[in-house]
Amino acid sequence: MYTLYSMQRSGNCYKVRLALTQLGIPYRLVEIDVLKGDNRTPEFRAKNPSGRVPLLEVAAGRWLPESNAILWYIAGGTPLAPEDRFERAEALRWMFFEQNSMEPSIGAAYFWLTLVRGGRDLKMHQIEGWTEAGYAALGLMEEHLETNRFFAAGRYTIADIALYAYTHMADDAGFDLAGYPRIRRWLARVASQPRHVTMEGTPALEAAG
Amino acid sequence: MYTLYSMQRSGNCYKVRLALTQLGIPYRLVEIDVLKGDNRTPEFRAKNPSGRVPLLEVAAGRWLPESNAILWYIAGGTPLAPEDRFERAEALRWMFFEQNSMEPSIGAAYFWLTLVRGGRDLKMHQIEGWTEAGYAALGLMEEHLETNRFFAAGRYTIADIALYAYTHMADDAGFDLAGYPRIRRWLARVASQPRHVTMEGTPALEAAG
Repeated sequence: MYTLYSMQRSGNCYKVRLALTQLGIPYRLVEIDVLKGDNRTPEFRAKNPSGRVPLLEVAAGRWLPESNAILWYIAGGTPLAPEDRFERAEALRWMFFEQNSMEPSIGAAYFWLTLVRGGRDLKMHQIEGWTEAGYAALGLMEEHLETNRFFAAGRYTIADIALYAYTHMADDAGFDLAGYPRIRRWLARVASQPRHVTMEGTPALEAAG
Repeated sequence: MYTLYSMQRSGNCYKVRLALTQLGIPYRLVEIDVLKGDNRTPEFRAKNPSGRVPLLEVAAGRWLPESNAILWYIAGGTPLAPEDRFERAEALRWMFFEQNSMEPSIGAAYFWLTLVRGGRDLKMHQIEGWTEAGYAALGLMEEHLETNRFFAAGRYTIADIALYAYTHMADDAGFDLAGYPRIRRWLARVASQPRHVTMEGTPALEAAG
């Protein structure tokens, strides 16, 4: 059984919990609260030198970090992971976009403005950059959704899961989605997929079972 | 035949030219000089709304952006793209790391400090953040190379190509690799692969043929 090292309120970790739940894959959950320094212990650093979550133990002593790489690993061979050559590239295109354009803007804003006490003062000089980059990313998503219901392969895939995590927190990160009606409809479309769970509601299946 | 929209001095574009050359895939090259605004024309925005390069026309009117997604597309089915489930995840892990931790630090520093005239003054407030994030990324690479010759699957893959692009420019971006002997040996190992070409030396194969 997989063991997932995860922080409940992390968008990157939520992606993995959502996909595991939708795929019906049981897993052990270890909560790593980055705000309390759980990720700075020698034990955790031995598993993942970057100290980041999520981290998946795929087999005894074999560790996989990076949320989007974990999504490909756990969803491989299921309809959530497109394997047609162009469809796979489309999904990867949006997942690299997510890690390069969205997580460093909306994700960073969420972390520092919502999770870290006093974070707004610490990071005041970066807020303008996050805002500009975040709205630019949302604009590209809105444009894509003019002619597409999902982000890749014409169906719900791990590309949607990857993008959903921080987009659905945009409000909490200080972004106003009022001008992005297609994104709001797509968020509702993702939330209506079978076995969808909220960020707060994703349990450790083992604990819940 | 593929058409690649590329800027000669972009690390993200170099990745694709290097892989196409090593795979012996002919392509047409269209130079898009971002510094001259070639990417802000309506014609280019119609192809890629983000205005970014590289952009690969994989078939008439079918466009693929995002350097690392392009690498998976062009290298699919070759030894450069590992398809074993865990090896693929390992390659993806380092490629997502590259877009999340390296391109926004060493890549951004290279762009603003080396390519853009006056960029150092414009971005002075960001240099400290780039420096810290860039050295942290280099530290993780150095640690991985303690026990590995390459980044995934035990051999030279597109994960190495992705990481090589900005790592081999680190000097130009103001980073000192003196304390990273394993990275320097890995850079030499990558540069010694068959059909390797330098960033400046990557031609359009059609033009060269």
